[in-house]
Amino acid sequence: MKREVKKVVLAYSGGLDTSIILKWLQDEYNCEVVTFTADIGQGEELEPARKKAIELGIKPENIYIEDLKEEFVRDYVFPMFRANTIYEGEYLLGTSIARPLIAKRQAEIAALTGADAVSHGATGKGNDQVRFEMGYLGINSDLIIIAPWREWDLNSREKLLAYAAKHGITIEKKPNKSPYSMDANLLHISYEGLVLEDPNAEPEEDMWRWTASPENAPDQAEIIEIGYEKGDPVLLNGQRLSPASMLHALNELGCKHGIGRLDIVENRFVGMKSRGCYETPGGTIMLKAHRAIESITLDREAAHLKDELMPRYAKLIYNGFWFAPERYMLQAAIDKSQEGVNGTVRLKLYKGNVMVIGRDSTTDNLFNADFCTFEEDEVYNQKDAEGFIKLNALRLIIAGKNKKRQGK
Amino acid sequence: MKREVKKVVLAYSGGLDTSIILKWLQDEYNCEVVTFTADIGQGEELEPARKKAIELGIKPENIYIEDLKEEFVRDYVFPMFRANTIYEGEYLLGTSIARPLIAKRQAEIAALTGADAVSHGATGKGNDQVRFEMGYLGINSDLIIIAPWREWDLNSREKLLAYAAKHGITIEKKPNKSPYSMDANLLHISYEGLVLEDPNAEPEEDMWRWTASPENAPDQAEIIEIGYEKGDPVLLNGQRLSPASMLHALNELGCKHGIGRLDIVENRFVGMKSRGCYETPGGTIMLKAHRAIESITLDREAAHLKDELMPRYAKLIYNGFWFAPERYMLQAAIDKSQEGVNGTVRLKLYKGNVMVIGRDSTTDNLFNADFCTFEEDEVYNQKDAEGFIKLNALRLIIAGKNKKRQGK
Amino acid sequence: MKREVKKVVLAYSGGLDTSIILKWLQDEYNCEVVTFTADIGQGEELEPARKKAIELGIKPENIYIEDLKEEFVRDYVFPMFRANTIYEGEYLLGTSIARPLIAKRQAEIAALTGADAVSHGATGKGNDQVRFEMGYLGINSDLIIIAPWREWDLNSREKLLAYAAKHGITIEKKPNKSPYSMDANLLHISYEGLVLEDPNAEPEEDMWRWTASPENAPDQAEIIEIGYEKGDPVLLNGQRLSPASMLHALNELGCKHGIGRLDIVENRFVGMKSRGCYETPGGTIMLKAHRAIESITLDREAAHLKDELMPRYAKLIYNGFWFAPERYMLQAAIDKSQEGVNGTVRLKLYKGNVMVIGRDSTTDNLFNADFCTFEEDEVYNQKDAEGFIKLNALRLIIAGKNKKRQGK
Amino acid sequence: MKREVKKVVLAYSGGLDTSIILKWLQDEYNCEVVTFTADIGQGEELEPARKKAIELGIKPENIYIEDLKEEFVRDYVFPMFRANTIYEGEYLLGTSIARPLIAKRQAEIAALTGADAVSHGATGKGNDQVRFEMGYLGINSDLIIIAPWREWDLNSREKLLAYAAKHGITIEKKPNKSPYSMDANLLHISYEGLVLEDPNAEPEEDMWRWTASPENAPDQAEIIEIGYEKGDPVLLNGQRLSPASMLHALNELGCKHGIGRLDIVENRFVGMKSRGCYETPGGTIMLKAHRAIESITLDREAAHLKDELMPRYAKLIYNGFWFAPERYMLQAAIDKSQEGVNGTVRLKLYKGNVMVIGRDSTTDNLFNADFCTFEEDEVYNQKDAEGFIKLNALRLIIAGKNKKRQGK
Repeated sequence: MKREVKKVVLAYSGGLDTSIILKWLQDEYNCEVVTFTADIGQGEELEPARKKAIELGIKPENIYIEDLKEEFVRDYVFPMFRANTIYEGEYLLGTSIARPLIAKRQAEIAALTGADAVSHGATGKGNDQVRFEMGYLGINSDLIIIAPWREWDLNSREKLLAYAAKHGITIEKKPNKSPYSMDANLLHISYEGLVLEDPNAEPEEDMWRWTASPENAPDQAEIIEIGYEKGDPVLLNGQRLSPASMLHALNELGCKHGIGRLDIVENRFVGMKSRGCYETPGGTIMLKAHRAIESITLDREAAHLKDELMPRYAKLIYNGFWFAPERYMLQAAIDKSQEGVNGTVRLKLYKGNVMVIGRDSTTDNLFNADFCTFEEDEVYNQKDAEGFIKLNALRLIIAGKNKKRQGK
Repeated sequence: MKREVKKVVLAYSGGLDTSIILKWLQDEYNCEVVTFTADIGQGEELEPARKKAIELGIKPENIYIEDLKEEFVRDYVFPMFRANTIYEGEYLLGTSIARPLIAKRQAEIAALTGADAVSHGATGKGNDQVRFEMGYLGINSDLIIIAPWREWDLNSREKLLAYAAKHGITIEKKPNKSPYSMDANLLHISYEGLVLEDPNAEPEEDMWRWTASPENAPDQAEIIEIGYEKGDPVLLNGQRLSPASMLHALNELGCKHGIGRLDIVENRFVGMKSRGCYETPGGTIMLKAHRAIESITLDREAAHLKDELMPRYAKLIYNGFWFAPERYMLQAAIDKSQEGVNGTVRLKLYKGNVMVIGRDSTTDNLFNADFCTFEEDEVYNQKDAEGFIKLNALRLIIAGKNKKRQGK
Repeated sequence: MKREVKKVVLAYSGGLDTSIILKWLQDEYNCEVVTFTADIGQGEELEPARKKAIELGIKPENIYIEDLKEEFVRDYVFPMFRANTIYEGEYLLGTSIARPLIAKRQAEIAALTGADAVSHGATGKGNDQVRFEMGYLGINSDLIIIAPWREWDLNSREKLLAYAAKHGITIEKKPNKSPYSMDANLLHISYEGLVLEDPNAEPEEDMWRWTASPENAPDQAEIIEIGYEKGDPVLLNGQRLSPASMLHALNELGCKHGIGRLDIVENRFVGMKSRGCYETPGGTIMLKAHRAIESITLDREAAHLKDELMPRYAKLIYNGFWFAPERYMLQAAIDKSQEGVNGTVRLKLYKGNVMVIGRDSTTDNLFNADFCTFEEDEVYNQKDAEGFIKLNALRLIIAGKNKKRQGK
Repeated sequence: MKREVKKVVLAYSGGLDTSIILKWLQDEYNCEVVTFTADIGQGEELEPARKKAIELGIKPENIYIEDLKEEFVRDYVFPMFRANTIYEGEYLLGTSIARPLIAKRQAEIAALTGADAVSHGATGKGNDQVRFEMGYLGINSDLIIIAPWREWDLNSREKLLAYAAKHGITIEKKPNKSPYSMDANLLHISYEGLVLEDPNAEPEEDMWRWTASPENAPDQAEIIEIGYEKGDPVLLNGQRLSPASMLHALNELGCKHGIGRLDIVENRFVGMKSRGCYETPGGTIMLKAHRAIESITLDREAAHLKDELMPRYAKLIYNGFWFAPERYMLQAAIDKSQEGVNGTVRLKLYKGNVMVIGRDSTTDNLFNADFCTFEEDEVYNQKDAEGFIKLNALRLIIAGKNKKRQGK
C-alpha cells in the first residue's frame, strides 16, 4: 500500500536509472517531482541532467543543480582526513563521505520546495541506501523516504530497459561507457560488479578510469610540497588553494603518477562482504602527508588517542552516521587536536609510491634537535630513564616476586 | 656506589660498543662476564663475536651463541602480524619485536650460568633500554640490570675510542661500514642519526642497505602467492616454508622490488620525537597479504574489534611490554580470531608497490557470490534493509521529533 | 504469505501468552509443535507447563522440560561477571544473559526433533526478540524463525483474551499475580510497563517481588565471606557450592538485606529508551566481591584493559551477540586475565549496602606490605620517581618550551 | 648537588610537614620562600597558616592564601562528573582532581612573584607527586621542582619531629587529631596508613570523619531534587546554587544519610597497589543523579561512547594528566555530548543508598511515551524489527552456511 506523497525531491544524476526512477515516482506516487543534481566533482557535465529532467516533464523551477565541491571538500573531506581515516585498514571512504552532503542538501531542498518526501537511486543491498537515509533523517525526521529499488519489481537490467522503452525514456549511448557499477566524486571513483564478484580474479587494466597504472606512470619522480594549517592542506608548492582546488590539483598529480589504486574486499554495514576497486589519488597523497605533518607537530598521546578512535570514526562514516551525536563528539576531539598541526611536508611521487622526504614547521615543531641533542642536560637526563623503567616495571617485578614466593 | 655483582650476562654483538662494555663490566664491577650473541637474522657472521670474546678474556664456556631465527619469527613476528600491527600508522616494529626474545633468552642464560646480573648496550635516550629491561624483569624480577650508557661517562665517540685504545680493544675497519646507527634482524633494518636528525632532510640513496630503490627495481612486475593457516603465512608459491624461511624469502622478493622503505618521525616511549628510516621488505608484503586473506575469511565485527585494539597492542610492543599481562590478554583475543584465517593471496610486486590481485579460501571463504547474488531470496531480502535502516535511525528520528516539538 | 513449516520448537512458559502462541502456530502454520520449557531459576513450577501443553494437544514426546540452572550460571552468568559487566553504568544484564542459553537449547532440540522452525513469545519492540533470534541463527543459520508478535494482529490485551476464549485456552487466575510485564531467572527479576512508562513516577513498593526494601531489611548487618577461583565464586563462608547453588544462596542473602534493586531508563538495541526496574540481589553482591578480589590479585594494566573493554562486552551481551566471533574474542581476553584471581573477600550486608571489609589471597596477592613498606629499598626507591615523572612529562615540557620560543 | 634556586613557591598547609619543608627549603636552598595556601574546601581555617608562615619568617607579601572553591568545583569537579568518571570501578578521584588546580595556581604565583621554583609536600611513593609536578610542567615547563620527600633523609616520623624540635617549629596538638594520613577537599576526604595497610582488616568506625555510618544514619529517608543544565547540577530542590554551594549542600545531605564511604585497594601510577578509604558524599549523589538525567536526555551511542572513553579519562586524571592534550581532546568530546543534558532528577537518600525515583526534562526528554506507545505506527513499526535482526545477523548466517558447506 503506497503512502500518500505530495512532492518528492529526487537525487537525480540524469542517467538511465534515476530517469527511470523519476518516471516511476510520477506514475506510482502520482506526485510532483523535484530533481536535485549536485556537482561534487564527479567529472560529468550537469546541464544534460537539466535537459533530461525537462524532457521528463519536470518544471524548470523544480530543477536544482548545484555546485557543492567546495562545501564537500571543506566540510566533509578535510574533517575526515584530520582523523587519518581508513576503513578496515585500506579504504579511504570516498563514496561514504559524499552521501551525507547530498542527503543534507536534498532535505534542505525539500524544506525550500515544501516537499514531503525524498528519494534516491541506491539499491537495497548496499551501504548507500543507509547513508542517504540516515542523512535525510538526521536533518528532518519527518521526511517520507522512497527507495524505489526496495519497492519496485524492476530487479533486472532487462526489466529496467523494458520500462524505459515503454515510458519513452531515451538511453544515451556514451562512447567508452564503463560496464562496471561506478561512483565518482572529487575524492574518488569506485568500481563494483562483473569480474569483481570473484575476489580471486584481477580486473582488466582498462577498468581503471582515472589513474595511470604504476607501470605506465612517468619514469621521473616528482617532488611536491604541501602546507598545512590546523590539519588541513592549504598550500601546494607554495600556492594557496581553496579546498576543492587543492584536492583537484592533488588528484591530477596522483593520477599522473599511478597513485591511489585499491582493490579490496570490504564488509558492508548491511552484513555481507563486497569487492570494490577504488582510485583515490589525491586522498592517498593527503593521508600520507597529514600523518607526516602530525609526526612533528602533534603530541604523542594525542596522536595515539586519535589512532585508537580512528577505526570507530571510520566505521561511523562508512555506516552513514555523519549527523549522529557520536560523530560530533569524535569530531570535537579530533579538531581539538589539530590546532597545532601547522607546517609543510615534502613528498616524492613515483609510480604508485608516495614517499615523505621532509617535514617542517616554523611554529609547532615538537621535534627539535636542540631539545634532543645539544641542550640535553637541561631537558633530558639519561639517568632519569632508570627510574622511569623501574616504576613502569614495578607491577611486573612485584608479580614476579610473588610468583617466586609461591614457588611458581 | 656500585652494586655487588658476581656474574653478568651481556647481550654481545662483537662490535666495538659491546666490546667496550664487556671490558668496562670486568673493570668496574670486577665480575665474571658471560656473553650472549643471538642470530636473529641480522645478517652478520657470529663466529667473529666468539673470537673477539675470547680475545677479551671470556672463558669458552661463558660464550653463548645461538640461532634464534625460527623462534623469533614463529613466536614473535607472526603473532604480531596476526594483529596487522602498525605503530603510529607507519612503523612495522621491526626493532621492538626482537628485544623481548633477546632479553628472555639472556635471562634464561643467567639462570643457567648462575649469573645475578644482565647488561645491554642500549643508550639512555632510546626505547631499547626499556624493551630489554622490561624483558629481563618480566622473566626474572630479581636480576640486577647494568645499563652502562646510563652509568658511565663515555658519552662521546671520542671517549669511547680512547677507552678502547687504552684497554687494547681493537677496532675492525669494515669496508663499506655505514656511518648510521643501525639495527637489523630478520624482519627489518633501521637507521638513525646524522642527516636524519633534521626531519626536513632526505637521506642519501646509499644509506639504504637492503632494498633496491623503487627507481632501481625491475621494470617487470612479479606475481607471488602466499598460503595462510590460522593467520600465519606457511606456503610461498605452493611451497611450505618454515617461519624464518618464509620471512627470508619474502625479504628477498621485497628487496628486489623496492618494497618496504619507510622514513618517519616517531614518538619514543621515553618522551621525545625521533627520526628513523626502516626497511621491512618481507613484513610490508606480509601486512598487505594478511589483511587480504582476512578480508574474505574474517567476520566483520571480529575484524573491527582487531582494528580498534591494534593501536594499543602496537604501543605495548613498541614500549616493551611483550611479557606483560595485558599483552597476553590481547594476544588471546587476536589468536582466537585467527582460527578461520586460512587461504591464499596473490600479490603483484612492482617498484615499491604490493598489490593484491586475488584472494581465495577453500575452507573459510565468507565472501560467496552464491550467498550474495544468486540465492538472494534465501539469504538476503532487500526489503529487510528498510527495517534495518529505520531501527538504526530510530534514535535520530526521536531526537529530531523532540527538537521540532521544542521549536528548535 | 506464510512460509511452509513442518515442525516448530516453541519456547514455552505455560502462561497465557505462549499458550496462545502455541495454538496460533498450530492453526496458522498447520504444523507440529514441540514445546521447550527451561528451568533457569525463574522460581516457577514447570510441571504445570507440561499439563498445559498436553491440554493444548502437544504429544508427550514433544514436550521438553529441562533444568538448565547449573549450565546457566556456570557458562553464562559467571563468564559475564568475570568482566565486571554493567550496561550503561547500571544494569547487570539479568534478562540479556539468559536468552542465548534458551535459544541455543531450543535450536538443539530442533535438531533432535527434526524441526525446521523455532518460535518465541518476545514482542517486536523489545530486545529479547533480537537475543532469541541471534541465538538461533548463531547455532543454526537455516532455522525458520516465527515471531508471532510481529506477525499476528493480536496487538492488544483484549484481542488476546478473545483469541484465548475462542480457542478454549483457560486462563489461570494466580493469586497475587503481578500486573507488570516481568522476566525472572536465577540472576534477576525485571519489571516493565504501567506506572514505569512515566520515568518521573516511582513504582509502588509492592511491585518488588524478591527483595526486602532497604527500609524493611534487618537492622543487623551480616558478614559473609566469598572464596574465588579463577575469577569465579566457589566458596560461601567456607562451604563449596555449585554455581547455581552459589547464586541461589547469594540471592537469599541479598533479598534479606534489601540489596540489588535498580530503577533505570535504558537504551534498547531497537532504538528507543525504555524504563525498567530490576532486582539482582546475588549479582549485586558478586559484582562488588569480584572487583574486590581483583583489586589485590589482578595486574593494573590488565584491570584497566578489562575496564576499557567492558562497556563493549556489555553491549554485545545486551544486544544479543553472545555467539558472535567478537564476543568469543573478548571472552578469551577476559578469561586469560582471571587465572590469578584467587582468594577470599569479606563483605558486610546491610539495608541495601554491600560493603567490602576485607580481601585476601594466599597465592596471588599482589598487595604486599612487605614490598610496599618494609623492604622498600629493595623494590622501590623513591628517587626513581623523579625520573619516572620527568620522562612522563617530557612531551609536555618540550611542548611548553616550544610555546615559549614562539612567544605563545 | 643542589640546584641554584632563587625563590620557591611552596604549597603550604600550615601543618607540621609543610612547615618543616618550609624551613628545610630556607636552609638547604638558601632561597626566599613564598607560601601558597588554597582553600579548596578542606574544612580547615586558613588564617593559622598565615600566622605560622610569619612565625617561620615568611614576609607578609610572600604569603598567598586564596579561596579556590568555586573554581575547583566549576572547572575541575563538574567537568569530571560530566564524564561519570570512576577509577577502577570504584574511586571518584577526589584527591586526583584537586591537585592540578593547586599546581596551576602555584605556577601562576611563581610567575607573579618571579619565583624560579615550586615545591610540594607529597612523598616519593604516591600519586600526588606526579599530579603536582605534571601540573607545574603543564603550565610552565621551566620551573625547577623541589620534592623534599625525595631529597632529604627525614624518612621517619622520629627524624621529622627531631628536625622540627631542632629548628623551633612548634607542633600544635589538635584535639581529636586523626592518626591516619588524610587529604580533604570539597569533594572528598581520604585515609591511608595504619590498619589500612592490611587489606584484609576493617578500619574502626571512628576513622571516618565526615559521614554518619549507614547504621547511624536517620531511619527516615529524604527526598531531594537536582536540576541539571548542560550536564552540571545547578538547582537543589528548586534553588539555584553556585557550584561550590551545590557540592557543599550535597555533602551535607550525603553525610547525614551515610552516603559515599568507600574502602578499596587501588593501583597507583607509580606501580604498587595501595589501600585507601574515602568519603565522597556529595560526589556519590552527583554520579547517580548525572547518570539518571543522561538516561532520558542523552543519545544511546553518545552515552556508549562516553562509557568506553571514561576509563581512559579517569586514568588520565588519576595519573595527573589534566593539562595534557589528550585530556583536552576527551573533554571536548564529553562537553559536546552534554549540550542537551538538561532536566531534573529526584532521589531518595536512605542509610547509604542513593535511589533514583524520578527523572524529567521539559526540553530534552528523549524518552517519550508518545513516541513509544500511542503513536507507534508513525514512528515504530514492529515489522521493521525483522529486517533489523536479519541484517544484523547476516554475517552470522553466512558464516553458519559456510560451516555447513564445509561439513563443520
